[in-house]
Amino acid sequence: MSLRETLKAIVETVEGGLGATVMGYDGIPIDEYLTDSGTLDLRLMAVEYATIMKEVGSAVEVLKTGELQELSVNTAMSRVIIRAINDDLFLILALAADGNFGKGRYLLMREAPAIGELLA
Amino acid sequence: MSLRETLKAIVETVEGGLGATVMGYDGIPIDEYLTDSGTLDLRLMAVEYATIMKEVGSAVEVLKTGELQELSVNTAMSRVIIRAINDDLFLILALAADGNFGKGRYLLMREAPAIGELLA
Repeated sequence: MSLRETLKAIVETVEGGLGATVMGYDGIPIDEYLTDSGTLDLRLMAVEYATIMKEVGSAVEVLKTGELQELSVNTAMSRVIIRAINDDLFLILALAADGNFGKGRYLLMREAPAIGELLA
Repeated sequence: MSLRETLKAIVETVEGGLGATVMGYDGIPIDEYLTDSGTLDLRLMAVEYATIMKEVGSAVEVLKTGELQELSVNTAMSRVIIRAINDDLFLILALAADGNFGKGRYLLMREAPAIGELLA
């Protein structure tokens, strides 16, 4: 399965899936898949969260609680789950506010290693 | 129940609970409860995450996805869940890496409004 197909499978498997993207910590997107449904600006979201992931990574280093694995941000209108793939890349999944958060987390945890290998 | 007792009840109800604190976005802690078990620096954690919550709050405003409700950060050694109480305060729960993340999220969601009223 190509990267685009993997992203599509994740988004379409999870209830409320809006889009998914693989992104570098340098803010450069690798690939993305977005449903037709949304007014979601996945590109802008990825750039904003690239900054946040770097900030959280630094905080986690200060706190000495081990490597950053996952960040999630829930707002009134969305659920965003971000999973570290390796030191360079992370995976973002955006869900509707009533999306299946637990399943989204599970799919990212399951797929992140495979995506890392695909891009190695 | 006092604020300290509420924090204690949360930490002791959730499997793997290490500590909880109520914190202002200005970085000033209101109260905290910490189990004996840990080497956890809850004070430092709260200060680091106060900064992160402000950053994420700004990102969420840019993205126009509604009010920030919850942030979670999972690392190799810990699960941290942060729940907004109101515009001034938030609630942090720290769990061990094998702690019950779902129950922690549920308890914070349930208790945040009551804590907000207690401090109003």
